[in-house]
Amino acid sequence: MHFFSDNATPVCPEVMAAIAAADHADHGYDGDGWSARLNGAFSDLFGTQAVALWIATGTAANSIALACLCPPYGGVLCHEEAHIVVDECGAPGFYTHGASLMALPGAGAKLSPDAVTARLRAIRPDVHQVPARAISITQATEYGVVYSPDEVAALGDLAREHGLGFHMDGARFANAVAHLGCHPGDVTWRAGVDILSFGCVKNGGMIGEALVFFGDRAEARAAEAARWRKRAGHLFSKGRYLAAQALAMVEGDLWLRNARAANAAAQALAEGAAGRLMHPVEANELFVRLTEAERAQLRAQGFDFYDWGADAARLVTNWSQDAASVQPLADALRALKG
Amino acid sequence: MHFFSDNATPVCPEVMAAIAAADHADHGYDGDGWSARLNGAFSDLFGTQAVALWIATGTAANSIALACLCPPYGGVLCHEEAHIVVDECGAPGFYTHGASLMALPGAGAKLSPDAVTARLRAIRPDVHQVPARAISITQATEYGVVYSPDEVAALGDLAREHGLGFHMDGARFANAVAHLGCHPGDVTWRAGVDILSFGCVKNGGMIGEALVFFGDRAEARAAEAARWRKRAGHLFSKGRYLAAQALAMVEGDLWLRNARAANAAAQALAEGAAGRLMHPVEANELFVRLTEAERAQLRAQGFDFYDWGADAARLVTNWSQDAASVQPLADALRALKG
Amino acid sequence: MHFFSDNATPVCPEVMAAIAAADHADHGYDGDGWSARLNGAFSDLFGTQAVALWIATGTAANSIALACLCPPYGGVLCHEEAHIVVDECGAPGFYTHGASLMALPGAGAKLSPDAVTARLRAIRPDVHQVPARAISITQATEYGVVYSPDEVAALGDLAREHGLGFHMDGARFANAVAHLGCHPGDVTWRAGVDILSFGCVKNGGMIGEALVFFGDRAEARAAEAARWRKRAGHLFSKGRYLAAQALAMVEGDLWLRNARAANAAAQALAEGAAGRLMHPVEANELFVRLTEAERAQLRAQGFDFYDWGADAARLVTNWSQDAASVQPLADALRALKG
Amino acid sequence: MHFFSDNATPVCPEVMAAIAAADHADHGYDGDGWSARLNGAFSDLFGTQAVALWIATGTAANSIALACLCPPYGGVLCHEEAHIVVDECGAPGFYTHGASLMALPGAGAKLSPDAVTARLRAIRPDVHQVPARAISITQATEYGVVYSPDEVAALGDLAREHGLGFHMDGARFANAVAHLGCHPGDVTWRAGVDILSFGCVKNGGMIGEALVFFGDRAEARAAEAARWRKRAGHLFSKGRYLAAQALAMVEGDLWLRNARAANAAAQALAEGAAGRLMHPVEANELFVRLTEAERAQLRAQGFDFYDWGADAARLVTNWSQDAASVQPLADALRALKG
Repeated sequence: MHFFSDNATPVCPEVMAAIAAADHADHGYDGDGWSARLNGAFSDLFGTQAVALWIATGTAANSIALACLCPPYGGVLCHEEAHIVVDECGAPGFYTHGASLMALPGAGAKLSPDAVTARLRAIRPDVHQVPARAISITQATEYGVVYSPDEVAALGDLAREHGLGFHMDGARFANAVAHLGCHPGDVTWRAGVDILSFGCVKNGGMIGEALVFFGDRAEARAAEAARWRKRAGHLFSKGRYLAAQALAMVEGDLWLRNARAANAAAQALAEGAAGRLMHPVEANELFVRLTEAERAQLRAQGFDFYDWGADAARLVTNWSQDAASVQPLADALRALKG
Repeated sequence: MHFFSDNATPVCPEVMAAIAAADHADHGYDGDGWSARLNGAFSDLFGTQAVALWIATGTAANSIALACLCPPYGGVLCHEEAHIVVDECGAPGFYTHGASLMALPGAGAKLSPDAVTARLRAIRPDVHQVPARAISITQATEYGVVYSPDEVAALGDLAREHGLGFHMDGARFANAVAHLGCHPGDVTWRAGVDILSFGCVKNGGMIGEALVFFGDRAEARAAEAARWRKRAGHLFSKGRYLAAQALAMVEGDLWLRNARAANAAAQALAEGAAGRLMHPVEANELFVRLTEAERAQLRAQGFDFYDWGADAARLVTNWSQDAASVQPLADALRALKG
Repeated sequence: MHFFSDNATPVCPEVMAAIAAADHADHGYDGDGWSARLNGAFSDLFGTQAVALWIATGTAANSIALACLCPPYGGVLCHEEAHIVVDECGAPGFYTHGASLMALPGAGAKLSPDAVTARLRAIRPDVHQVPARAISITQATEYGVVYSPDEVAALGDLAREHGLGFHMDGARFANAVAHLGCHPGDVTWRAGVDILSFGCVKNGGMIGEALVFFGDRAEARAAEAARWRKRAGHLFSKGRYLAAQALAMVEGDLWLRNARAANAAAQALAEGAAGRLMHPVEANELFVRLTEAERAQLRAQGFDFYDWGADAARLVTNWSQDAASVQPLADALRALKG
Repeated sequence: MHFFSDNATPVCPEVMAAIAAADHADHGYDGDGWSARLNGAFSDLFGTQAVALWIATGTAANSIALACLCPPYGGVLCHEEAHIVVDECGAPGFYTHGASLMALPGAGAKLSPDAVTARLRAIRPDVHQVPARAISITQATEYGVVYSPDEVAALGDLAREHGLGFHMDGARFANAVAHLGCHPGDVTWRAGVDILSFGCVKNGGMIGEALVFFGDRAEARAAEAARWRKRAGHLFSKGRYLAAQALAMVEGDLWLRNARAANAAAQALAEGAAGRLMHPVEANELFVRLTEAERAQLRAQGFDFYDWGADAARLVTNWSQDAASVQPLADALRALKG
């Protein structure tokens, strides 16, 4: 049983069925009937007028969002361990034409209003220094920790006060909302988020995420994003196959059901790993202190996962699991002699 | 029956089956078993050691190829009606960081050695002028015309002589090879082509083309292309679904079978449209002189297609058709009173 | 006596004196007293509220202007022989992050409203094609021909109608105004020009041109341009030496006096070259049909200039000359047996 | 008496004389006789075959150097308080097309081999992470501290071992060499430096620094840099005025004489400020702990300088001063009641 990544899993049956159902002729690019339903579907989901585009990957979604919010000479306030900083080979620099990522510390890969405020104060308002123009946070964070609606809103207030755009990388947004039990609008537009990268692939999709624009400038920004999408070679000829996946996720509650399954699996593992957890387990990732010998022992029992430095492991659960199905690993963790 | 575009068709059954067969867990990105087979499959196909990457779209494949061949201060010699000039919203400028497209005229959207030579002569070798660094051609061209092996080789010789990289946009490469009946190596690496955008989507695929690197610098260029692919947000989390499609195309002869069907359909239409053709019909596109009234008449009979200016139409056939299935349109064209 | 280029001449005495007068301590960058006077000086000159920045070179001034007017995915309508197309090694592509130069034909390197209109009509308003976002013209043109106020205004009307920015490359703006005898506002802001590259160096300066912003958005665009200037390494530590030069040019009528001298010299040569001129002589450049033998004959008499293709020469006059001083060449031209 | 910045001073008489001496006609751009002497002059100065280009500003010199050493997807290891990080409005991101600055801590704004090694170890060698491709250090540092030849060589060894380019920002290189008393080659090419930004303006010049290329790849890199210089609008029409300044600096020992004067002035102040210094005084900058009241007291006596945070001041000496001329401030500092 493997816990490498939610990227490594198969596609969930509902998404596969949606792809098959889209397999007949229609207009190319995003001129098809499925793509035309996206705005409505995401507006319904978030309870506000939203504009949504399908985008190939999370990296592309994040970068195009930042290109809409930050000029080349500007900076994006973000956590120093954010995916955009660590794992995208400089994609934000490519799409923004060289904007700076202003990397800040914070427990659990969470950005705090204090850290943002301190950084803003340190910037001289002259042409020599890069001005901050956007905030980007990840929900759930790279350590599987979740921002509450109030925590997001506190950053949203700062963004509004300082004229900054506010982007949320929601590669695991579904897991965050499943944990919070709140309305998806509570941690996005109601809390000041301008653009959300809404993840599908880690949550059971095959290819394609959604970029969701909120607020007064949603239309204008989405029109610009559509240019970036084409210009970056991301406007697929047969875009209906991406649109159909996103619709399958959000026209019903598949996105939440899948995320709840993965979260439940993570909670089961968390109980097994009690006393070893490096971060609270709130979504579908666990960071577990495990010696080299312990990791070898688990692998010998058929459990696969990534090492996290010398003395820990990362375990990621996914839509195809639940509390019951991961019980063998939970038991194996419990059985380790710490 | 529609003849809008080969983009608008469904996915062919063999590709759909390959996607389904890839639907189980494996490593993410391009660390999976399918992606690992690409180099071998394309080397076999082309009869030489090649390196191949799956790439989301033709626009991305073309742009990444050009970024590997041309520095930001350089220029790419190409036809003024090439897809990279007309239909990619400046994507090559984005990926190359501002290289110039040096657009040249030529019948049938073909680039001629004479046009290339004349342009090269006009460039002063000082820092004020943009130096040419690459040639890019489309096979088959935007007008469905095919370069012979000798025609490609003549441009390849020029490229070598002047130290230029040589790229081929092969969105409809299969249709060109099906028309020529030659070995695919004859119009690529044997004729001096460095990088080929190998089209799959117009030929029955769902999502994903291949970028194929030939020659001594293939490894180094592909390594750089892999960086651009990631940096542009084109490294899909579940890349195996793209790799599986490309393999389905080229591990057997599906790519040729599909192209032959589309070409045969085009030939049947060409007979029906005799005397009205604006370009020789060599691949799966027809540009047919038709008055507004004639177009209306055809549409009234249930045939859909794009207008091409005021007095013509573009008809595109695809893998799902053949000579028999398009006979109704061939007959309707023949029946028009010219 | 050389007629290579107005770049090759010494600095005029008034500018040299202004540099010497600036040679004492003041704040760095553009925080000095000279830089502070630029807005006022150029507003007075143009008879409207303008914002002016010193910029190192014409290439930088043009590129920064275009970056203020055109997004990366947009296009700039310009003449195919414009300096920005032919002689800047792709600098506009660098500053605009890959915008397209839409090169159009036209006699005397002049852009015509008809050519602009035809090009605009050919652009489909979808995301696949690059949308035009700006017009750029050169006054006087690369062939020393001058746009009348009405000609500029016709293009300005088109720009306004289509929502395009309007830039003027005024490397030889002074020569154009000296020829027209009009108010400088008549061929700029009154005719719809948004940003002017105001040339100083060819007209007797040492280093530095001015970028002049007109209209409602002047402040906002200049603020953005100030970012590009810094970000491109063009914010000189001792900017006062550039500001002082620009002020020396425009706080009096030096810019016009110098241009009139050069123009008068050109007229004297034009009389000598009657019957050989390829373009009307309206500023300080002459393009003269001269065989190889005739050019050799002139060079043997001590006159230097650049060849212009196989059968012509380019002669450029400058601020340090006048009708009398160039009489020897005028006579030599007249004496040639055509 | 002001101690704002070495940017704020006048031009030294020798440089002004060199400018006047260049004031006659010659070929434009860098085709003139002065520019042609640069390679020789800098090769003589450094005792090795070097290639040198005049470049307008330090920001441009640094950025062009980095563009020659680091691809867009790469990273530059540098100090977190380096000028390229803090004070160039993202210019390196502009010139490198989005490369990452990998900012590291270190006392006195010095980069240590340990910090570099630790950062290199943390980078996974996959396409998701930005690979380091260059090291950049500042000599003297932003805090006026000087790297010894051994310290530079230790970083140079690391660069060679890891295949990294090595750039030195020498805005105050002359002050560093004057302090060390070594041969200029000892802290550059002999210690592994590939490209040096050689500062002139802070040391008595008007406009223009030099970019000096060392080693086997000097010619190729300089050819590329010449493209960036043009493409960025930094190839001045009358380049001879920049070349003449650089030659005035280095064909004799003016660069060292000026730097020694500034350093001597700094030492005199350092004695006056004993017990208050935040960093060793090794070049021409002092960071002095001074309360708000003390700063007010000094200003009341006619001394001007920049505050450095709430409890300190930055004092910068320059070529026009010496130990004697700054004695009044030294005395005033000594007289403060700490």
